[in-house]
Amino acid sequence: MKLEDVRKAQGRAEAILARAGIAITPGEKDGMEIADFGLGDLDHYGLQVIVYEANDRYCAKEIILFPRQICPEHQHPLVDAANPGKQETFRCRWGVVYLYVEGEAAAHPRAFVPKGDEALFTARQEIVLNPGDQYTLPPGRLHWFQAGDEGAVLSEFSSKNLDETDVWRNPQIKRIPTIE
Amino acid sequence: MKLEDVRKAQGRAEAILARAGIAITPGEKDGMEIADFGLGDLDHYGLQVIVYEANDRYCAKEIILFPRQICPEHQHPLVDAANPGKQETFRCRWGVVYLYVEGEAAAHPRAFVPKGDEALFTARQEIVLNPGDQYTLPPGRLHWFQAGDEGAVLSEFSSKNLDETDVWRNPQIKRIPTIE
Repeated sequence: MKLEDVRKAQGRAEAILARAGIAITPGEKDGMEIADFGLGDLDHYGLQVIVYEANDRYCAKEIILFPRQICPEHQHPLVDAANPGKQETFRCRWGVVYLYVEGEAAAHPRAFVPKGDEALFTARQEIVLNPGDQYTLPPGRLHWFQAGDEGAVLSEFSSKNLDETDVWRNPQIKRIPTIE
Repeated sequence: MKLEDVRKAQGRAEAILARAGIAITPGEKDGMEIADFGLGDLDHYGLQVIVYEANDRYCAKEIILFPRQICPEHQHPLVDAANPGKQETFRCRWGVVYLYVEGEAAAHPRAFVPKGDEALFTARQEIVLNPGDQYTLPPGRLHWFQAGDEGAVLSEFSSKNLDETDVWRNPQIKRIPTIE
């Protein structure tokens, strides 16, 4: 991403946090990660992330989603004998999030997937997260999510963060962000 | 504590969460832990806690503090070879928190300690947490904290929660809550 686009996305995310009444520091705003997954289509696919704490034992992030923005389907695989893979809890703070996990398919899912990308989304059990609702995903379980029409703020609590080992359904995805 | 007093404290904490714009579910309100540490003096010593998630790997809580309420001095000791003790991150969401840790004593501390209890507070390095500020405590480090005049909401992110192993300065403290 171009630095100019990163700054623009950070500003949009900051406005959503303000609507949600969530305080961040100026340093957290400047360091906010804008992940477009290498797809170059941030309005449809992306995450804005503030990592509050990441150490060898636990991790806490705030995730800001633009309206209808999608975090694509992925899972957190087994790492080694000491680490069965990342376990994570998503708690909706503001807006609404449609979370999809492996399981019984929703008859009338509330999420919209961009035309032509349907094959990239196989997890179809729907969990609707309104403010105060949360859901914990065990390691290895496929999932993806989309914000509702206003965007959303989602707190993530987890075991050690290991973005680099995530397994994405879409082979075009590059999780490690680059600024040109 | 009497159930009636627990319900009253839960109602007060709920009002602070509402001022902070933090959504919780009705079940979270009803299950909110009111910890008076067995001291029977909740206006001075206590914590109101919603445990969002507690598993073998990580823990996330929301802590609500009444105006000038104190969480007494304690530390999280070594557990065993696999667990060096609880590590925790405190992030202020609303109000102000005066956090004290082992280190250089503040010349003019902002906290008030109830008269006669001064010897129960030895950690004197002061960290002021306004909304958006946070601080991570390594295992074993003595600490205590007090909310400012309006009360406060503090998110706690940590490794596995082990309240029962905490070591409290005041030998009268009983961490495990009881309802009469």
